[in-house]
Amino acid sequence: MSYRAPVKDMLFNMRALAGLQMLSEQIPDFADHGLDTAQAVLEEAARLNEDVIAPLNWTGDQQPSSMVQPGQVKTTPGFKEAFAQFSQGGWQGLQHPVEFGGQGLPKTIGTACAEMVNAANLSFALCPLLTDGAIEALLVAGSDAQKARFLPKLISGEWTGTMNLTEPQAGSDLAQVRTRAEPLGDGRYKVFGTKIFITYGEHDMASNIAHLVLARVPGAPEGVKGISLFLVPKFLVNDDGSLGERNDVHCISIEHKLGIKASPTAVLQFGDKGGAIGTLIGEENRGLEYMFIMMNAARFAVGIQGIAVADRAYQKAVNFARERVQSRPVDGSLPAAAPIIHHPDVRRMLMVQRALVEGCRAMAIDAAAAYDMAKHHEDADTRRQAQAFYEFMVPLVKGYSTEMSLEVTSLGVQVHGGVGFVEETGAAQYYRDARILPIYEGTTAIQANDLVGRKTLRDGGAVARGIAVQIEETEAALRAHPSAAAQSIAQALAHARQAFLDVVAFLVENGRQNPNAAYGASVPYLLLAGNLMAGWQLARSLLAAHDMLQADPTADTAFLQAKIATAHFYAEHILPRALVQRDSAVQGGDSLMALALDQF
Amino acid sequence: MSYRAPVKDMLFNMRALAGLQMLSEQIPDFADHGLDTAQAVLEEAARLNEDVIAPLNWTGDQQPSSMVQPGQVKTTPGFKEAFAQFSQGGWQGLQHPVEFGGQGLPKTIGTACAEMVNAANLSFALCPLLTDGAIEALLVAGSDAQKARFLPKLISGEWTGTMNLTEPQAGSDLAQVRTRAEPLGDGRYKVFGTKIFITYGEHDMASNIAHLVLARVPGAPEGVKGISLFLVPKFLVNDDGSLGERNDVHCISIEHKLGIKASPTAVLQFGDKGGAIGTLIGEENRGLEYMFIMMNAARFAVGIQGIAVADRAYQKAVNFARERVQSRPVDGSLPAAAPIIHHPDVRRMLMVQRALVEGCRAMAIDAAAAYDMAKHHEDADTRRQAQAFYEFMVPLVKGYSTEMSLEVTSLGVQVHGGVGFVEETGAAQYYRDARILPIYEGTTAIQANDLVGRKTLRDGGAVARGIAVQIEETEAALRAHPSAAAQSIAQALAHARQAFLDVVAFLVENGRQNPNAAYGASVPYLLLAGNLMAGWQLARSLLAAHDMLQADPTADTAFLQAKIATAHFYAEHILPRALVQRDSAVQGGDSLMALALDQF
Repeated sequence: MSYRAPVKDMLFNMRALAGLQMLSEQIPDFADHGLDTAQAVLEEAARLNEDVIAPLNWTGDQQPSSMVQPGQVKTTPGFKEAFAQFSQGGWQGLQHPVEFGGQGLPKTIGTACAEMVNAANLSFALCPLLTDGAIEALLVAGSDAQKARFLPKLISGEWTGTMNLTEPQAGSDLAQVRTRAEPLGDGRYKVFGTKIFITYGEHDMASNIAHLVLARVPGAPEGVKGISLFLVPKFLVNDDGSLGERNDVHCISIEHKLGIKASPTAVLQFGDKGGAIGTLIGEENRGLEYMFIMMNAARFAVGIQGIAVADRAYQKAVNFARERVQSRPVDGSLPAAAPIIHHPDVRRMLMVQRALVEGCRAMAIDAAAAYDMAKHHEDADTRRQAQAFYEFMVPLVKGYSTEMSLEVTSLGVQVHGGVGFVEETGAAQYYRDARILPIYEGTTAIQANDLVGRKTLRDGGAVARGIAVQIEETEAALRAHPSAAAQSIAQALAHARQAFLDVVAFLVENGRQNPNAAYGASVPYLLLAGNLMAGWQLARSLLAAHDMLQADPTADTAFLQAKIATAHFYAEHILPRALVQRDSAVQGGDSLMALALDQF
Repeated sequence: MSYRAPVKDMLFNMRALAGLQMLSEQIPDFADHGLDTAQAVLEEAARLNEDVIAPLNWTGDQQPSSMVQPGQVKTTPGFKEAFAQFSQGGWQGLQHPVEFGGQGLPKTIGTACAEMVNAANLSFALCPLLTDGAIEALLVAGSDAQKARFLPKLISGEWTGTMNLTEPQAGSDLAQVRTRAEPLGDGRYKVFGTKIFITYGEHDMASNIAHLVLARVPGAPEGVKGISLFLVPKFLVNDDGSLGERNDVHCISIEHKLGIKASPTAVLQFGDKGGAIGTLIGEENRGLEYMFIMMNAARFAVGIQGIAVADRAYQKAVNFARERVQSRPVDGSLPAAAPIIHHPDVRRMLMVQRALVEGCRAMAIDAAAAYDMAKHHEDADTRRQAQAFYEFMVPLVKGYSTEMSLEVTSLGVQVHGGVGFVEETGAAQYYRDARILPIYEGTTAIQANDLVGRKTLRDGGAVARGIAVQIEETEAALRAHPSAAAQSIAQALAHARQAFLDVVAFLVENGRQNPNAAYGASVPYLLLAGNLMAGWQLARSLLAAHDMLQADPTADTAFLQAKIATAHFYAEHILPRALVQRDSAVQGGDSLMALALDQF
C-alpha cells in the first residue's frame, strides 16, 4: 500500500486536543458528530483514499492533464472515475450544509478527511479544494437564486468550482486586476479579460464549472476597493437547472509545471467572442471581501496539503529505511549490514519528519475545532474568542505547514539516497509537488503580512499574548508532571514562548515607525509562531498521552509512548529554532535593507 | 545574460582570505600564479562560461542526454562542441601537472574556475569533474605506463574519466561491492559486474572513456579491505597510444532523474561478453585508499557545485526581483506598485541567498589555498598543518555548501512566486538540479561521519580546537574595530564558536561509550561547523574590506561596503543557527532513538 491514512493519530488529536466529544455535546448541530461518527467517517475515507485515489498519484505525474485540442483538457486516466466515486460517496459535501445536500460535519472531522485525500493525491484533491472555496463564497454572499442553482450541484460534485484571481500583472497584488465586467441591465454582466494560474480551470471530470471571477465594473474605484466578484459558469444554466449554451470562457493553454502535474493549471480567456455571461455575487466593489472567504478556506486547506504531502513523504521514507540494507550499526547492536533505519542519522531524519508532521497536524485539527466553535457555538463570547484564535491560526497553518513540507519532502529524498533522485522511486514527486504550497493562495510572505498586520498589529498583540498565556498554563501542567520528557518540553516551550513574546513586542513597537524592520521580521515571526503552536499542541498531546496511559489499562501503549517520544523530540530538536527566528526578527532589521539596489 | 561570473568576489577572496599573492611568493611552483594571473584566467573563464556553456543549461534540461540505441548515449545538442572548446582552452588541465600537459595552476584559482563552469551548467561540468578525479587517482597510484598512456589524453580532454563505485546493493556501504576481477597472468585482469549511477559512464563527447572501477580479486578479504581499483577503458589502448578494440563494458540504461538531466547517469555492465580487460591501479586490496583520492577531490568539487548552482539561482532571483512589479513598498518610499526587490521579505530572501553563497565561496577558496600549501609548500610543518586544516574542511565544503544550495535554490523559486513553479521560467531547474548534491559522492550523513570519526574523534578534537583558536583571534580583531558590523559579528562568532566547542567536547566524551548519540549529532555538528567556518571567513572579509576602504582611496567602495553588509547580515541571520544545531547535537540524543522500530 503506497499510503496508509493516520486514522489513529487523527482520532487522538480530535479526542485529546480538539475536544470533539465536548463540541458534539455543546453544539446541537453536531449532536450526532462525536468521536464514534468521526471514527466511522475516517475509516471510510481511509478506504477510498488508500485504495482508489492514492494509486493514481504516480499515474498523474507520468500522465499529466493535457490539452488534447484547443480549449479541451483531458485529465489523467482514472481521475474522472475516481472523482465520480469521491462525489457519490458524499465527500465533496462533507462540511457543507445539509440544506443543500451536504453532510454538515464539523471542520474538525473535515480537516482530517482533507488531509487524507491530499496525501493520497495532491493533484486530484485540488479540484474539491477549489470547489469548497466556491461553495463557501456562495453560501456567504450568493443570492438565493445563485445558491439554489449552484450549491446542490457543487456540493454533490456534479459540477466543480474555481477561483479566478491572478492576471499576468496581478499576482500577490490584486489592486492590479484589470478584468472588466459590463452590466447588461438585466442583472447579468459581460466579462472580458485573461486570468492565469486557474487550478482546474478546464477539465473533463464534471459537466459544468462555476468560475468565481474578480473583475471591475465600469467606473469602479482604483485598487482593491474597485473589485467585484462574479459567477461565470462554463455552461450557462437554464431556469430549470439544465445546462444551456457554452459560455464565452475558454482555456487557451495549461502550464508545464514543476509538480502537481495532474492538476490542470489553466490560462482562461473571458470574452473573446463577445463577452462571458456572469452574475454578480453580493454587491459591486465588495469582491475582495468575498474573495477572502474563499481564500481563507483555501489557505487553511493548503496548509493541510502541506501536512498531507509531508506525511506521505515520511511514510515512504520509513518504508524505504526499513528495507534498504547498508552498513553495520555504529552501536554494534547488529553483527552485519542492517536496514538503514538502525543508523542514527537516518533515525534523526525520520524523527524530524514525524515530529513536524504530527505537530502541524495537531495544530491544524485544534484550529479546525476553533472554527467549529466560532461558527456553531451558542455563546457569543465563546464564538468571538474562537474566531479570533482561528483567524490567528490560519496564516500559521498555511505558512508553517507548507514551509515544513519543503523540509520533510526534501528529507524524504535524502533518506532514499541516490535512488531518491531517480524519478521512478517516487520520492522526488513529493519534493516537486510540495514546492507550490508556500506559493499559491498567498505566498508565505503574504501570510506573514496578514499575521503581522491584521492579526498582530491591529489589536496591539492582544490575541497573540492571550495565546501565550494559554501556553504558559500548559507549561505549568508540564512542570507538575514527573516525566523527563514533560520537563524537557516545559523548558523548550517556555523559551519559545518568550521568543514569540519578544517578537510581538518588537512588532507592536516598530510596526508604524519602522515598517521595513517589522515586515522584514514577518516571515521569521510566522515560522516562530507556527513552530511554537505546533510544539504547544504536541506538549498538550504528551500530557494527554500520559493521562491515558495512567487512566486506561487497555490503552494503546505503543501509540501513546510514541506520541510522548515524538513530542520530546520536537522539544529538543525543533522548538529551539524559535530562538534563531527571534534573533533574526528582532535584531536583524539593520542589515536587511543595507544594500543599495545596485549593490545586488 | 543568464549568468554573470562573480570574478570580483572571487578575486577578493583570493586576495583577502586565501593569500594567493603570498602563496605565489612562497611557493616556487606558483611563482607566476599570483593575483594578476588569477585575474587573467578568471576573466577568460568567465567569457567561455557565460557565452558558451551557460546558454546550454536550459537546453540540457529540455533535451537531456538519451540512449539513442542500445549502449549508445547522445548528449544534449551543443555539449560536444562546447566540451571541445573547453578542452582546447586547457580548462580540463588547469590544476594538473605541466609534465602531462596541464597548466599547473593552484587549486585556489582552479576552485574559482570550477565554480564558474558549474554555475554555467551543472550537468556539463560533471564530465570534467569526474575526469579530474580519475586524473588524481592515476597521478597518485598509477603505474608509469598507465600515467604515460592515459594522463595526457585525460588532461587534454581528448578522453574522459569515470568513477565506478556503486552497485545495486552497495551505495554508501562499499563493503558490499561484488564486482570481481580475475587475473590473466600478464598483469591484466578480466572484470565482471554491474555498476550503477555512473556519471558520464557513456557519452559522445570524447573518443575514449577511462573507467576507474572498484572490484575484488579472487581470495580477497571480505569488506572494504578486499577492494582493488582497476582502470578499464571503453576502448583498449594500443602500445602506440592509438585506440584498439572495444572493451567489454557497456551501458545498458541511463536513469530518468529529477535534475541534472543532461548528465547521463549510466548503468554499466562489465564482462557480459567474456570479461572487460582492465589493469590494476597500485596494489591489490588497496583500492579504497586510492578511491578516496578521487573521492576527496570529487567531494570538494561537489561542494563547489553547491555554491555554483546557488549563485546562479541567486542571480536569477535578483534579476526577477528587479523587474517584477507588485504592490507598494510598506515604508511608503514609492507612491505606486514597485519592483518587488523593494519589499523587505524579498530583500530578506535575497540577502539569505547572497550571504550563504558568499560565505560558502569564501570558505571554499580559503580551503583550496590550504590544499595548495599542503601540496607545495617547502616547509614540512606548514604542509602538515595545512593538510590537517584542508582535511577538516572537505566534509564542510561538501556537506554545508550542498545543504545550503537546497535552501538557496528553494528561495530562488519562492522569490519568483507562481511563475517560479512553471518550468519555462528556469528557477525550478536549479531546485531540481541541486537536490542531488547532498547525496552523491557521499551523502551529508557520510560527510558527517567522516567529520566526526576521522576528523574529530581520531585526534581527540585537536584540529577542531586549533581552528577555534584562530577564530578567537579574528574575534579579537573584530572587537578592536570601531564598526557596528564588526561588533555584531564578533559577538555572533563567539557564540557560534562556543557552540562548536561544546559539540566537539560532547563528541570526544561520547564517541566511544555512546556512539548513537555521537553519530546522531553528526549532521547537526557538520552544519554548525560549516556555518561557523563560512561566518568566520565573512568576518575576515569584513575586516579586510574595512582595511581596503581605509588604505586605498581608489578602492571599489560599493563592492567593499556590500561585502561588509553581507557579512553583517550573515552574523545576524545565519550564524545564530549554530545554537540550534548545538542544542540538537548535545541535548537531543535521548529522544533520537526512543522509538522502537515498530512504532514508526
